[in-house]
Amino acid sequence: MNIGAIEAGGTKFVCAIVSAQPDGSAPAILERKSVATGQPESTMAEVLAFFQASQSAYGAIERLGIGSFGPIDPIPGSPGWGRVLATPKPGWTDADLAGYFKRALCVPVAFDTDVNAAALGERLWGAAQDVDDFIYLTVGTGIGGGAFANGRLVHGAGHPEMGHIRLARLPGDSFGGTCPFHDSCFEGLASGPAIERRWGMKGADIPEDHEAWALEAAYLAQGIASLCLAFSPRLFILGGGVGARPDMLARVRQALPAAFGGYRPGLASEQDAARLLVAPGLGSLSGLLGSAALALEVR
Amino acid sequence: MNIGAIEAGGTKFVCAIVSAQPDGSAPAILERKSVATGQPESTMAEVLAFFQASQSAYGAIERLGIGSFGPIDPIPGSPGWGRVLATPKPGWTDADLAGYFKRALCVPVAFDTDVNAAALGERLWGAAQDVDDFIYLTVGTGIGGGAFANGRLVHGAGHPEMGHIRLARLPGDSFGGTCPFHDSCFEGLASGPAIERRWGMKGADIPEDHEAWALEAAYLAQGIASLCLAFSPRLFILGGGVGARPDMLARVRQALPAAFGGYRPGLASEQDAARLLVAPGLGSLSGLLGSAALALEVR
Repeated sequence: MNIGAIEAGGTKFVCAIVSAQPDGSAPAILERKSVATGQPESTMAEVLAFFQASQSAYGAIERLGIGSFGPIDPIPGSPGWGRVLATPKPGWTDADLAGYFKRALCVPVAFDTDVNAAALGERLWGAAQDVDDFIYLTVGTGIGGGAFANGRLVHGAGHPEMGHIRLARLPGDSFGGTCPFHDSCFEGLASGPAIERRWGMKGADIPEDHEAWALEAAYLAQGIASLCLAFSPRLFILGGGVGARPDMLARVRQALPAAFGGYRPGLASEQDAARLLVAPGLGSLSGLLGSAALALEVR
Repeated sequence: MNIGAIEAGGTKFVCAIVSAQPDGSAPAILERKSVATGQPESTMAEVLAFFQASQSAYGAIERLGIGSFGPIDPIPGSPGWGRVLATPKPGWTDADLAGYFKRALCVPVAFDTDVNAAALGERLWGAAQDVDDFIYLTVGTGIGGGAFANGRLVHGAGHPEMGHIRLARLPGDSFGGTCPFHDSCFEGLASGPAIERRWGMKGADIPEDHEAWALEAAYLAQGIASLCLAFSPRLFILGGGVGARPDMLARVRQALPAAFGGYRPGLASEQDAARLLVAPGLGSLSGLLGSAALALEVR
């Protein structure tokens, strides 16, 4: 069975045709394309053209999974299902992302946040196989997280917004943050754009021994510790462009025991932190394969 | 069927014989007793004596439910199941709370945190009936929370420790906090003892128009907002002695929109906050009846 997958991000839409494997292993990516995120109409039309063109090579897709930037309405049966909610991203508020592709491609469409998709991908084929309770967090252009509890994705009234939990500013850090809503939320203090604005250069250009990275690791550790105290996950997967930097995982593991402050018995050492905090098993493909996974779960 | 219930707190153990109702409504409390929390041996012996003495009046209980202060090991099948984990409370580290009563009373024992018990009680008979995704938070001697996601209690590797998520200190508040582990966690800044130590008088003696309460409401709103952003619950129940103060619910509802910072579309007004944030349906009995509820769920 061929499935369409869209990882719909604020910067780009990555779309792919994947082939579901009969043995349940990770789908093979048959073809993939990136589309820059512009206005909704042109962006969706370009993505649609990709799927239509691919039909001649691979046949029609049977389902489509979309893992989208948020906030969105992912609750099946809700009147707003499939749409982007109020977002600062120009033009996208109320965009009918899932409905557009459902009408155009005439296939069942699964729709969730990019991070819920990534969490599902990690659960099926990545680092969280057989783990019923875990969190997947992406740290990149934004910060967002998806949680599994008792083997199921946590949605509640919509979806978590883990990037907007409040952090305590670290001593000496007077940077105003990048979030238009909050003066010291996780995303505003520790996302990629926050790093760039705080230090006046792109993260990719900041040397590995720059103080920026110790500060970043301390904020990530603080946010991760709060999320662990809230959910008590068995595993915490750190993804995203900032999370995937060469030394980032090691730095955050080192900072975690101090962030827990000795409170969690099993989290007193860096070794404990290394068992809890891991890289995505699917590398940078968690979101894309996870979007396909959403479609596999459509009933 | 008669059930024993113990709400095991750091200050007192409330124990009761309750009668499960055939129609599934809240159990009737047949007899109840409070035992001051001293050393484990004497406290547990006194509670046991209550249950033994009650047998002549009501017959033997068929099950026992314990909702306990934490941290504890509530995971069935774990080698440490039923025990209190490392706690600053003298004498209680490693106390075999569930095992003691299981051996002494020879009945199935259900064991969870006091707040998970309270959440279950609210789900069955209180404010969260038919709500699959909600949080119960107690604010009193400590701060703790229990969460339902997809209709089930969230345990993960043990149980949440929502009282220890980090908060951002409010401008001008230089109070050091009361938590021995963290300099600005939710419990350290906003529990009953934190109020008492910050202002030099017991909460009960602080007048309603004192600035203490606006500050308290702002911290509660901040912590509640972070937990809502993490879980996206449909309902948030505020319990505990501080939570039950006459104006506290109204004050926190008023402070919530600012704590969300306009980010959550459905939480922009005090009216929105009033739909989200409610008092326990079982009043001060959530924990005790919830402990009985744990026993009802024993397989």
